[in-house]
Amino acid sequence: MALIVQKYGGTSVGNPERIRNCARRILETQRAGNQVVAVVSAMSGVTDTLIKLAKEVSPEREPVEREMDVLLATGEQTTIALTAMAINALGGKAVSLTGAQAGISTDGVHTKARIVNITPDAVKKMLDEGNIVMLAGFQGKTASGEITTLGRGGSDLTAIAMAAAIKADLCQIYTDVDGVYTCDPRVVKSAQKIPEISYEEMLEMASSGSKVMQSRSVEFANKFGVRFEVRNSMNHNPGTIVKEESPGMESVVVRGVSLERNQAKVTIDDVADRPGISAAIFGAIATANITIDMIVQNVSFDGITDISFTLSAADLAKAETALKAVLPGLGDKAQLRTQSSIAKVSVVGIGMRSHSGVAAKMFKALADAKINIQMISTSEIKTAVIVDEAEVENAARVVHTAFGLDA
Amino acid sequence: MALIVQKYGGTSVGNPERIRNCARRILETQRAGNQVVAVVSAMSGVTDTLIKLAKEVSPEREPVEREMDVLLATGEQTTIALTAMAINALGGKAVSLTGAQAGISTDGVHTKARIVNITPDAVKKMLDEGNIVMLAGFQGKTASGEITTLGRGGSDLTAIAMAAAIKADLCQIYTDVDGVYTCDPRVVKSAQKIPEISYEEMLEMASSGSKVMQSRSVEFANKFGVRFEVRNSMNHNPGTIVKEESPGMESVVVRGVSLERNQAKVTIDDVADRPGISAAIFGAIATANITIDMIVQNVSFDGITDISFTLSAADLAKAETALKAVLPGLGDKAQLRTQSSIAKVSVVGIGMRSHSGVAAKMFKALADAKINIQMISTSEIKTAVIVDEAEVENAARVVHTAFGLDA
Repeated sequence: MALIVQKYGGTSVGNPERIRNCARRILETQRAGNQVVAVVSAMSGVTDTLIKLAKEVSPEREPVEREMDVLLATGEQTTIALTAMAINALGGKAVSLTGAQAGISTDGVHTKARIVNITPDAVKKMLDEGNIVMLAGFQGKTASGEITTLGRGGSDLTAIAMAAAIKADLCQIYTDVDGVYTCDPRVVKSAQKIPEISYEEMLEMASSGSKVMQSRSVEFANKFGVRFEVRNSMNHNPGTIVKEESPGMESVVVRGVSLERNQAKVTIDDVADRPGISAAIFGAIATANITIDMIVQNVSFDGITDISFTLSAADLAKAETALKAVLPGLGDKAQLRTQSSIAKVSVVGIGMRSHSGVAAKMFKALADAKINIQMISTSEIKTAVIVDEAEVENAARVVHTAFGLDA
Repeated sequence: MALIVQKYGGTSVGNPERIRNCARRILETQRAGNQVVAVVSAMSGVTDTLIKLAKEVSPEREPVEREMDVLLATGEQTTIALTAMAINALGGKAVSLTGAQAGISTDGVHTKARIVNITPDAVKKMLDEGNIVMLAGFQGKTASGEITTLGRGGSDLTAIAMAAAIKADLCQIYTDVDGVYTCDPRVVKSAQKIPEISYEEMLEMASSGSKVMQSRSVEFANKFGVRFEVRNSMNHNPGTIVKEESPGMESVVVRGVSLERNQAKVTIDDVADRPGISAAIFGAIATANITIDMIVQNVSFDGITDISFTLSAADLAKAETALKAVLPGLGDKAQLRTQSSIAKVSVVGIGMRSHSGVAAKMFKALADAKINIQMISTSEIKTAVIVDEAEVENAARVVHTAFGLDA
């Protein structure tokens, strides 16, 4: 008998019929001789409807975050009740628990709380009584009993954290794809499902645009050593197992290729090359609450240099405003240039640590396809380039082929 | 400074605009120098939508009651969050509390739990910090932390029970009518709003068809001496104050006239007049879970009698089935007759206790209008008659006039 935590996303529980499908799958898992805790998200669309309502009652200001949490937590509470009902209707035995009832304690940062502690006594008691436990994802409570939510990707986090707390044998993250692929199959037809991937690779893939899971859940799993599987809730195919690095993994140099679209580039030309310049630029960006990705600074010539960085195209206007305010202090000739319609292609693999020539092979593949590289950034297990948005799909395909990832 | 509990029903918070209207009214009450706890119901329609979802995921059986409570409790949780947001948006300071957070402890009878205790520490603390407290109606928690709901009229009950627990100076039940009327104004144009009514009269009015409030909330208010006012949330008119009986109240013989339609009558003719017959009849009815109203047994003649009773027309078919099974044991000649399309008219007033002639005056008014009385039932403060449904409105009008209740 194994102890299994499963997580079903909003699409998997999007309507009564799908809720019943999940209920059947959860029940099958239990009837195969396991104990099951199933974490569910809000039914798809529900959270957006609630946010819309919140904006309608609060047109003068952003809705208060404490109350936003009370509101949004109803989404998952609805799903746990409905799924538990469905399991009971199908002849099983299930009880629901909200995040608060399940002992998920968080800090008090409403709308993006962090889990500080889990007391899984109620979960364990209910499992021991033969129940399937339907656990509300995305939510917890503070020490003083206030309702909190965990922010984006919160339901994955709930599943992984609960798996760690109850020392589950297995944690399955059900989604609407079969697993993690060597590249987005809509772009690269020959992309293959990856059977096993290390936490580090998964993190680099996630931060490079592979949107299967939010980084914070993977980081949490890495920190607490929770091995999990990303699977499809609509079929029974094996998925991708995400786990600690193992010796055999390094033999594959590149695990996958990620794409990230809707990027933009900001270049500040003819910046005075003196201490404090970078701090002035990136201080202004940070104050405007903008997340940036790559930063490149060219070698200076005659005390003048260029600084470029990339960011989400959605933040470009905000970044320009922020930088115009500090531009006069960056040097007499400093100029601002921006470019949207660029994209990022990354190759990721822990094998890169011990294999040289990855960057060279990537650049050659792109050169052969006559694709111009605009910026380059590397980390220990990733090499990323910026190309024109119009060329990103072709770039991904040629790189995917070059590293032997095609099926 | 007064401590005020207000309660707003589902229609009053039925959409974002109405929620903002309630928020304004609550805020006005606070700004007039009061502390305010506002209890809200689910937005109108929400509970029905949730019940529909529950039935869809659980077609094989009635949805599990424990989970029904988890599901339905989201309705009020949504409203408290939205109303608190609206108050904050309007410049006020409000926090929401679920029934569980507000310390409302109930027994474990899911979907119709009873309040066993209230620990209002969180409510008091938040009031003392200058907050308006938005409290979810209709819900509580068991000693072990399970979510419960209080059943029909539960939000009124929450308001009255919380008013008792925090020793509120005033409890206002906001609804979509101006208060309790001497009769349904749609039937009797000259009906007047009653300024003050005793708990007992309110209870008799409620159980006779005046559907302003459920009896259990009034009973609770009576038991704990909570004086409350029924008011209209759409205007600022004074409402009806429901309170303990006071000496002046007896001078009014009849406080109001109630109508109850959709009644049906069952008569069992030629029943043997021997011990155990009534028990057989009403045992069968009780086993079928049918609530009955009036019972009349005629004087027996030659060891044979007739027994009649009234019930809701909706239960008539079920009652017939139940009685046919026991009919053979009721006497050789026992026969079943039923009649739907009857209705009840009641006059209610604590003054009846000390004034004679109420029934005579009522019967004369009906006789003068040529309305036939089919059955009669009396209690200490009520006289009720059954008439043909087609005549009920006329009956209510002539009785209303006879007791000098016309405006």
